[in-house]
Amino acid sequence: MEKARLEAFSDGVFAVAITLLALDLAVAGPGPGNGSLAHQLHHHWPAYAAYVVSFFVIGITWVNHHALFKGFAVTDRALLFLNLTLLLFIVAIPFGTSTMAAYLTEGGTDSHVAAALYGLILEGMALSFGAIFVWSIRSDERRHQPLPAGSARGALVRFSMGALVYLVAIALALVSAPASLALIALVAVYYVFEQTSG
Amino acid sequence: MEKARLEAFSDGVFAVAITLLALDLAVAGPGPGNGSLAHQLHHHWPAYAAYVVSFFVIGITWVNHHALFKGFAVTDRALLFLNLTLLLFIVAIPFGTSTMAAYLTEGGTDSHVAAALYGLILEGMALSFGAIFVWSIRSDERRHQPLPAGSARGALVRFSMGALVYLVAIALALVSAPASLALIALVAVYYVFEQTSG
Amino acid sequence: MEKARLEAFSDGVFAVAITLLALDLAVAGPGPGNGSLAHQLHHHWPAYAAYVVSFFVIGITWVNHHALFKGFAVTDRALLFLNLTLLLFIVAIPFGTSTMAAYLTEGGTDSHVAAALYGLILEGMALSFGAIFVWSIRSDERRHQPLPAGSARGALVRFSMGALVYLVAIALALVSAPASLALIALVAVYYVFEQTSG
Amino acid sequence: MEKARLEAFSDGVFAVAITLLALDLAVAGPGPGNGSLAHQLHHHWPAYAAYVVSFFVIGITWVNHHALFKGFAVTDRALLFLNLTLLLFIVAIPFGTSTMAAYLTEGGTDSHVAAALYGLILEGMALSFGAIFVWSIRSDERRHQPLPAGSARGALVRFSMGALVYLVAIALALVSAPASLALIALVAVYYVFEQTSG
Repeated sequence: MEKARLEAFSDGVFAVAITLLALDLAVAGPGPGNGSLAHQLHHHWPAYAAYVVSFFVIGITWVNHHALFKGFAVTDRALLFLNLTLLLFIVAIPFGTSTMAAYLTEGGTDSHVAAALYGLILEGMALSFGAIFVWSIRSDERRHQPLPAGSARGALVRFSMGALVYLVAIALALVSAPASLALIALVAVYYVFEQTSG
Repeated sequence: MEKARLEAFSDGVFAVAITLLALDLAVAGPGPGNGSLAHQLHHHWPAYAAYVVSFFVIGITWVNHHALFKGFAVTDRALLFLNLTLLLFIVAIPFGTSTMAAYLTEGGTDSHVAAALYGLILEGMALSFGAIFVWSIRSDERRHQPLPAGSARGALVRFSMGALVYLVAIALALVSAPASLALIALVAVYYVFEQTSG
Repeated sequence: MEKARLEAFSDGVFAVAITLLALDLAVAGPGPGNGSLAHQLHHHWPAYAAYVVSFFVIGITWVNHHALFKGFAVTDRALLFLNLTLLLFIVAIPFGTSTMAAYLTEGGTDSHVAAALYGLILEGMALSFGAIFVWSIRSDERRHQPLPAGSARGALVRFSMGALVYLVAIALALVSAPASLALIALVAVYYVFEQTSG
Repeated sequence: MEKARLEAFSDGVFAVAITLLALDLAVAGPGPGNGSLAHQLHHHWPAYAAYVVSFFVIGITWVNHHALFKGFAVTDRALLFLNLTLLLFIVAIPFGTSTMAAYLTEGGTDSHVAAALYGLILEGMALSFGAIFVWSIRSDERRHQPLPAGSARGALVRFSMGALVYLVAIALALVSAPASLALIALVAVYYVFEQTSG
């Protein structure tokens, strides 16, 4: 298995998933009872907020995927299936995003369920990513060069933090859906700046 | 024809097809008569089960596609069109998946037809894959190095088994749609573990 | 402009367009007044016929695109925009296909318009392809090696034939939509066998 | 971060976004009250005009993306996120296109809002592109070779002009949606010819 083709396939899935996010931007369009376009766009703001958050969540994961795989010297079939599991959650993000956006301002149990569903999909993504990370550190032969101990610990901390934050977001979803989305957005902003300065 | 571009095009089609599976995850959303989100998600479970199964069926086929093409030293126009036929069935999998999921819990003839349709698409995929395999062993010049006789027999057995299992799944569909889906899921689990340990 | 990235972008567009064809396979699903699934699938046959024909039309064009670009030594901005024009028509094929399939069995003026629209999109594709071909023979420097005179004439004849056949298909559409689709299918079959044996 | 994978991911997003434009070409199809197909196609002309304009807008941006990245010697995380921001707007173009087309002939405030929304998305794209350009000229080390002063000024002028024209298109949208679309189409035509002769 050549790493290049694994990366190319993953890039394709990331690219399609990130683009499908935009399908949820659409408004009902002209028609009796639909209201003015300005009203529709205003009413549809959760979809736009959710689009931006999920776009950067997928984008950051792609960047991390890139950074992690760059260091791999070998691949094996276990990696292929761990990577497929990661992609299973990536591909489900547009679904989680549109469901969360549809219920965000509904309030009540439905909005909590919708935000928790979104958090669960991101948690599944983070855990799959963590599993690939664990695969990579189980043997030094899998990397071009061993990570220095401090760097490995730093990377492990960062991955664990992501998985932990999404758990907190799921718990928060049971109280307030917008607060849960805000937390996930804050983490995305943190990652962008942490990585841009890194 | 350079092999790299054939693989890149195939990877693109695999990536789009696997991502389109997620379009069927969507629920109706808020609205009068739609019920609570929890109810909608619960009622929609066949779509989620079908999504996971088809995701791994396409993923495994991609892995096998990869492994097979890695060994090819040359390509020709016959391979191009055999590969197109394989992709024709891959691209139809999201359709078969959503139809099967829509009727899975309906029971009666409709559910049998839906599960048989799903099995037929997978059978078409397996037979196309087998045709590419036969193309590859018809001449040693098509591979970098001849397969050892035992390995070739093992690979042929594995491909034949896939085609046979999907035939059984089609027959089983005429009795019980969920049983047919369960069989296909079991085969996917088997492939993941067989290949991960391979 | 490196040729590799032009090919990669084109491959991506071909891959997405060919996969979007499958969106038209969907049936209405269970529901009052929708009839049995077997009835729905039977009634939907034009969509399946149109899917197979358009899949191979796009697939053959991708193969030809590949063969043509393989010989290019240089690219320039004129080629970029001729290629974009070709892709404009490729991307419109799923629309033409689903419209044609929706009206194929309606009969009357609507079916003629729908089949003519499909033919027009394919004609636009063939003419764009021809323009790229003309671009390539306007200067020998654009190819790795000059085409021998006989080969160039043969290739030109083949491209002209495609453009001519689609014109005939448009004319035929004004008489019978199924006959027009049958002609386009026949040409696709011819191309597959001509190229497989070539 | 290898530049090749950044380009491959971007190419994938461009390819999917440009192909999703075609989803808006669909007409209602046969059915009571839908009118003849010829009538539907005629009535749907704004969607076809918008499709062609947006197709070339995305295509030109892809060509420019290509030309700009070709010169980069290094990439860093700032570039990754600037590029993600550019893609965020690229992916939103099909949404802006279909909304603008749906309201183009409605007249009144709705058509102005729809055309301004389309202009805003293109403005966001142009500004993101400009930010990548500024990133690239902030240090000569980021390019294989320093741009000659005249060439850098010419490129900066061209990028600024794009951002300025879209601002004018937004202002024009508040007066006439078709005039705004016509201006954006004219700019696309200008870019195609300027770049083809360049």
